[in-house]
Amino acid sequence: MTKIRNTSPNPPTSRGRRRLLGGLAASGLIAARRAGAANPTLEVAPWSRIPGAPILEHPYGLPSLHESEVVRRSARTWPLPGSASSMTPLADLYGTITPNGLVYERHHGGVPDIDPDRHRLAIHGLVREPKLFTMDDLVRLPSESRIHFIECSGNTGSEWNGPSGQPVQLTHGLLSCCEWTGVRLSTLLEEVGGLSTSNGARGGWMLAEGADAAAMTRSLPLERILDRALVVYAQNGERLRPENGYPLRLIVPGFEGNTNVKWLRRLKFVDAPLQTREETSKYTSLMADGTARQFAFEMDAKSVITRPSPGHRLTTQGYYPISGLAWSGRGAIRKVEVSTDAGATWQLARLDGTPRDRALTRFQADWLWQGAPAAILSRATDSTGYVQPTREALVAARGLNSQYHYNAIQQWRIDASGEVRNA
Amino acid sequence: MTKIRNTSPNPPTSRGRRRLLGGLAASGLIAARRAGAANPTLEVAPWSRIPGAPILEHPYGLPSLHESEVVRRSARTWPLPGSASSMTPLADLYGTITPNGLVYERHHGGVPDIDPDRHRLAIHGLVREPKLFTMDDLVRLPSESRIHFIECSGNTGSEWNGPSGQPVQLTHGLLSCCEWTGVRLSTLLEEVGGLSTSNGARGGWMLAEGADAAAMTRSLPLERILDRALVVYAQNGERLRPENGYPLRLIVPGFEGNTNVKWLRRLKFVDAPLQTREETSKYTSLMADGTARQFAFEMDAKSVITRPSPGHRLTTQGYYPISGLAWSGRGAIRKVEVSTDAGATWQLARLDGTPRDRALTRFQADWLWQGAPAAILSRATDSTGYVQPTREALVAARGLNSQYHYNAIQQWRIDASGEVRNA
Repeated sequence: MTKIRNTSPNPPTSRGRRRLLGGLAASGLIAARRAGAANPTLEVAPWSRIPGAPILEHPYGLPSLHESEVVRRSARTWPLPGSASSMTPLADLYGTITPNGLVYERHHGGVPDIDPDRHRLAIHGLVREPKLFTMDDLVRLPSESRIHFIECSGNTGSEWNGPSGQPVQLTHGLLSCCEWTGVRLSTLLEEVGGLSTSNGARGGWMLAEGADAAAMTRSLPLERILDRALVVYAQNGERLRPENGYPLRLIVPGFEGNTNVKWLRRLKFVDAPLQTREETSKYTSLMADGTARQFAFEMDAKSVITRPSPGHRLTTQGYYPISGLAWSGRGAIRKVEVSTDAGATWQLARLDGTPRDRALTRFQADWLWQGAPAAILSRATDSTGYVQPTREALVAARGLNSQYHYNAIQQWRIDASGEVRNA
Repeated sequence: MTKIRNTSPNPPTSRGRRRLLGGLAASGLIAARRAGAANPTLEVAPWSRIPGAPILEHPYGLPSLHESEVVRRSARTWPLPGSASSMTPLADLYGTITPNGLVYERHHGGVPDIDPDRHRLAIHGLVREPKLFTMDDLVRLPSESRIHFIECSGNTGSEWNGPSGQPVQLTHGLLSCCEWTGVRLSTLLEEVGGLSTSNGARGGWMLAEGADAAAMTRSLPLERILDRALVVYAQNGERLRPENGYPLRLIVPGFEGNTNVKWLRRLKFVDAPLQTREETSKYTSLMADGTARQFAFEMDAKSVITRPSPGHRLTTQGYYPISGLAWSGRGAIRKVEVSTDAGATWQLARLDGTPRDRALTRFQADWLWQGAPAAILSRATDSTGYVQPTREALVAARGLNSQYHYNAIQQWRIDASGEVRNA
């Protein structure tokens, strides 16, 4: 058994890094820079010699033009107009918050242009007082803000048959994490007088429906969502982005992405799931024994190394902090382990801050790359004790017909040139 | 004495809100909507009938065009080219994270266009091994991500002489909160071999210098910043925005905004503050007795109601959740109290989540507006026990010559028409 320490270690000291690695100082590149610095006759940079740009005329800011490659990308061309996805550039991001301009997209009928003043949320079905809500009505109710990830159930489906060769943006980029603000579903249920069924609030189901051209619909079990679900109008401080559900969406923390219904126009309380198109022809997985795995809502614990990852290149031997993301739809991340020898041995990664419930957690582990080929991988354990499986274990349990819920350990290979590949 | 409960109350139930307020149901507007909803023959909205827009050709997303008024704004026209500020639209934001496109700006020499591949950070002075760092060097060091507010020391300076009449964006909008990612200052100090002084790491000062045309410089006391300060390259997940310091800035959690030096090119370790232009002609406050208050770094505890706030209008009598932000440069927020009768009585506000160290905290309090003129205000207490002062107390302590560090309780007046004003 691999011996694992029980607490996150501190980052190594500089002395520790140098001893561990031969040190930055041993790198010719760094040594040359240090020689320059020791006699700091620095040229004044051109941008320090002239006044900079004034306050923007268009006062909503954008990234530097030097970052123009950090954008959402699609894994493929989508055959149907309006059905498409684009993915978050995880390899170029830091921390845990996804900036709104880079939150992944998944549409079934394109992005509707909804006038918020004319948008309504209908709540009906087995409730005492069915009601229509305007956006102003919703903003006048008590609100809550929480940081949660969202992940498409199809995320990383590219790897079911083994390494796809794709970079992390295209293998794991149907994943984002925002601070969401809105009204608790339980508050809205109170606003319509509660359920009109005799068996209480928790026995039933709820249909959530979008106002997009696809009228995206999902059935959700009340007992599992009522404590947590939010009907949200804001992400990372501002109103939702059009492609992320403007002006209103459902957030069901930890559940597969499509249940977080965007452009939300209707919540119908019912006594059984409605078997909509998206839960029969899609978002249900065919097992090896021919049965269907339906309503597998929670996204199981998962992690991935985002730096270094395919597309990055290690330019010199020496110290690298291996950095990545871990998350679980069933709670908080308890620990992440990292291996740099294809899983033969594991070290406990440092977690950045206290892991939040159903949110991305950033991890880091120290690595000395000595120029030999290597294989790096990460393995998450969540607060329920669940451990992220190997691909072999996942395939043994689910077979190879599933499109959804792929959460196996992901390996990146590094060759002697420092090139990182998904191979 | 006002009696204050010791724990944050829960939001009122719907029944509680209705009883408290006469209820949404008593509002003619809402009643009409409910009648419609009870017989939900809903017109299908036009945006539900046609396919929506495809994946964006320009794959970095922007807000809805319906939100085009939610932008940064300047309080005045600035006389000098390149010296300017723009302010975060707090009245239209939610939660605690400020989206990157709306983070406030304050420039002394405009926004430089810095090539990250040519940018260098020099660390020198009283250190054993002075060194130049490239951006790649910095990203190869262990990193840390933390959520912190930044606030310009001049924020709310408009209110020293009493209510300015301005909306909250222009009175309090030199305030933002992001997840920042970068390298601990203490890690960088290790990278240069530590201090070369005999009196240890904590006795000295550090000069931080920007690469902008103003060569913005501040002296900072090591003992008070070494545990917390970060040299950051990312905000809310992506690389810094140009106007927020791209590619590198200092973050000194809780210290006045200008010490978080943007476009950071140099850290010089010294044995005493250097009395730079920004700490003699600016960012020092003249007290009533003629003495100067210099190096008043921490932003004291403060809060403000952002909704309702000037520019909002209460459209009907009834329930409103009063919502706002609280923060302290000396720790976390312990409690926020809200008054709706000009300070005669106070109620304890609910805090959204567990308050974070030196970060914005969202608070809410329940209010029944019965159509009479009212005055609403909020008062923050931080983890050190410090209580946000009245304007009178602040002026008594600091006089009226200060431009900086105005943190008094802010009052908004509501007239019988529902109009909210800073009067």
